[in-house]
Amino acid sequence: MGDFRDNFRKVVPYVPGEQPKKKVIKLNTNENPYPPSNKVNEIIKSFDNNKNKLYPDPDCTILRDSIAKRYGFDEKNVFVGVGSDDVLSVAFLSFFNSDKEVLFPDITYSFYSVWADLYNIKYRQVKVNDDFTINKEDYYSDNGGIVIANPNAPTAICEPLEFIEDILKNNTDSVVIVDEAYIDFGGVSAVELIRKYENLLVVQTFSKSRSLAGMRIGFAIGNEELIKEMNDVKFSINSYTLNQVSLVSGVACIEDEEYFNETVEKIVNTRERTKEELKNLGFTFTDSKTNFIFATHKDLFAKFIFEELKKKDIFVRYFSLPRIDNYLRITIGTDEEMDELIASLKEIIK
Amino acid sequence: MGDFRDNFRKVVPYVPGEQPKKKVIKLNTNENPYPPSNKVNEIIKSFDNNKNKLYPDPDCTILRDSIAKRYGFDEKNVFVGVGSDDVLSVAFLSFFNSDKEVLFPDITYSFYSVWADLYNIKYRQVKVNDDFTINKEDYYSDNGGIVIANPNAPTAICEPLEFIEDILKNNTDSVVIVDEAYIDFGGVSAVELIRKYENLLVVQTFSKSRSLAGMRIGFAIGNEELIKEMNDVKFSINSYTLNQVSLVSGVACIEDEEYFNETVEKIVNTRERTKEELKNLGFTFTDSKTNFIFATHKDLFAKFIFEELKKKDIFVRYFSLPRIDNYLRITIGTDEEMDELIASLKEIIK
Repeated sequence: MGDFRDNFRKVVPYVPGEQPKKKVIKLNTNENPYPPSNKVNEIIKSFDNNKNKLYPDPDCTILRDSIAKRYGFDEKNVFVGVGSDDVLSVAFLSFFNSDKEVLFPDITYSFYSVWADLYNIKYRQVKVNDDFTINKEDYYSDNGGIVIANPNAPTAICEPLEFIEDILKNNTDSVVIVDEAYIDFGGVSAVELIRKYENLLVVQTFSKSRSLAGMRIGFAIGNEELIKEMNDVKFSINSYTLNQVSLVSGVACIEDEEYFNETVEKIVNTRERTKEELKNLGFTFTDSKTNFIFATHKDLFAKFIFEELKKKDIFVRYFSLPRIDNYLRITIGTDEEMDELIASLKEIIK
Repeated sequence: MGDFRDNFRKVVPYVPGEQPKKKVIKLNTNENPYPPSNKVNEIIKSFDNNKNKLYPDPDCTILRDSIAKRYGFDEKNVFVGVGSDDVLSVAFLSFFNSDKEVLFPDITYSFYSVWADLYNIKYRQVKVNDDFTINKEDYYSDNGGIVIANPNAPTAICEPLEFIEDILKNNTDSVVIVDEAYIDFGGVSAVELIRKYENLLVVQTFSKSRSLAGMRIGFAIGNEELIKEMNDVKFSINSYTLNQVSLVSGVACIEDEEYFNETVEKIVNTRERTKEELKNLGFTFTDSKTNFIFATHKDLFAKFIFEELKKKDIFVRYFSLPRIDNYLRITIGTDEEMDELIASLKEIIK
């Protein structure tokens, strides 16, 4: 006699940041404080619901085409998914089927190890330095794949393009994924390197700089062969992933470049101002090129500050993980929200 | 020296029915010919786009709650996904981790073998009878799981509840999935058996009877333990799957029970009338309890009819597969569409 429970897959799932149901200042999941482009609003309002009786285009042509044009590539170089988590999950499943270890930093987006465990992919978490910087040389060894978040999360550190290219130069035998969820807030994207390195996959999202976390759109750009493989795997999981409304909303969002630039600039300005304020309060932090600040305080424990802020209905992110358990990841909100954060921190620290 | 291509996952993806870009009579992907409920239209039109800057509720509470109420269960008994393909894919990954073979019919939804191949799940395709009926006794042997589509696709045959219960009585050691994508068009759902069999998972979709293929919503009902396991696996792939618009649209759809009943009844009436017309033209078919008819002609090859219809801009589904390669799967459209189909068939057959 067996038990059907014996055949359950053993998983330790990723735990997303809390989505509080009451009204709070939400600086815990790196969402954009500004609403999506009004062009998205208009396209949703004018959407012909009759279309919803039909399956969406499984190839997501209009959206892939729109992203391709924006970044100077062909539709064949673009894969789209239900957020960059979907895109990365498909990439892990598609490209990491080797006996060799996939490499990524020990401090990085914690979903990487979750996918690797889920899909039985061997991996090694490479130690970052004490200042959270990555040694590129650590990635020059034989491997089954490489994943680098750039800027890295939750450390907020962004490496220059040459750093990424050096890793690519030393790794032509495995797929190198560069996860650029936060690139628009001050980094230089590796997309141009795709023309030179056929094993490079660059992943981005609409959830941060494009204010569309609620619509679930992510994408990857890479050479045609990589994208074809990802589409084959996607068609082995779910033929129709992005719904009709997502497809047209994504296109409308990409088309409003002006609004995109305007909101990104506002967030960058707020970030730089917030850094000054945090410094005056005794915080130190990495040089963030993202929409969040990864900060530690000279006197008070991060966990204590996290809990005190929560009491004041200000949610930031705290990770109870080795090496980073005295840090807070604070999302950049509006100027008003950051003023309230600073005021509350002053009360806590006084 | 290796090649990064060596580590690609080898897949033979599912091929969905064609989504023609020009105006045709589309009877090839079992979509509903009627638009979604106007309540869905209203909720989309009144959607506050500002919400889209935030991630959706990862627990999908409002939609799970709404489905639970409709079927007389608790939210803890409901899992939701991006169409029933997403739900089934997560179920395969969650429950089928045994050394024993998972069993399903040789003629059934062709995605089952695609998921099993993708996730390295052992399986055996059990031969159905020549009239396409399933022998329940074939599923009484030791196994790592069972998947039964009821009604089955593309055969359109629906088995009674006792048939499903007999399979459950003889299988307490593995998870039994009943895929009820087409149940609302004349079958009796196995959901009530969930109260008696803790290893039963019933999967349904909004894409057929609820006219929402374009929105991508599917769900599973099962005991709390099964649903928790599926949620753990889902949180290991993608925390946020259903977007903000999908969640509220799904709820609005469920709430319009009257429209649901009205359109289902229309489709059933059109189906029964179409059966008569097809019989007069020399077709034979199974006793469909779905929104499609699985038909073969006494004189003409299915492939020939399929191609001739396509020339007339009428798309039906043809499977170039053993045992069913002389059959057509014809979706039930509006009465007008079926009139055009019949008129065209008369020309082809004359």
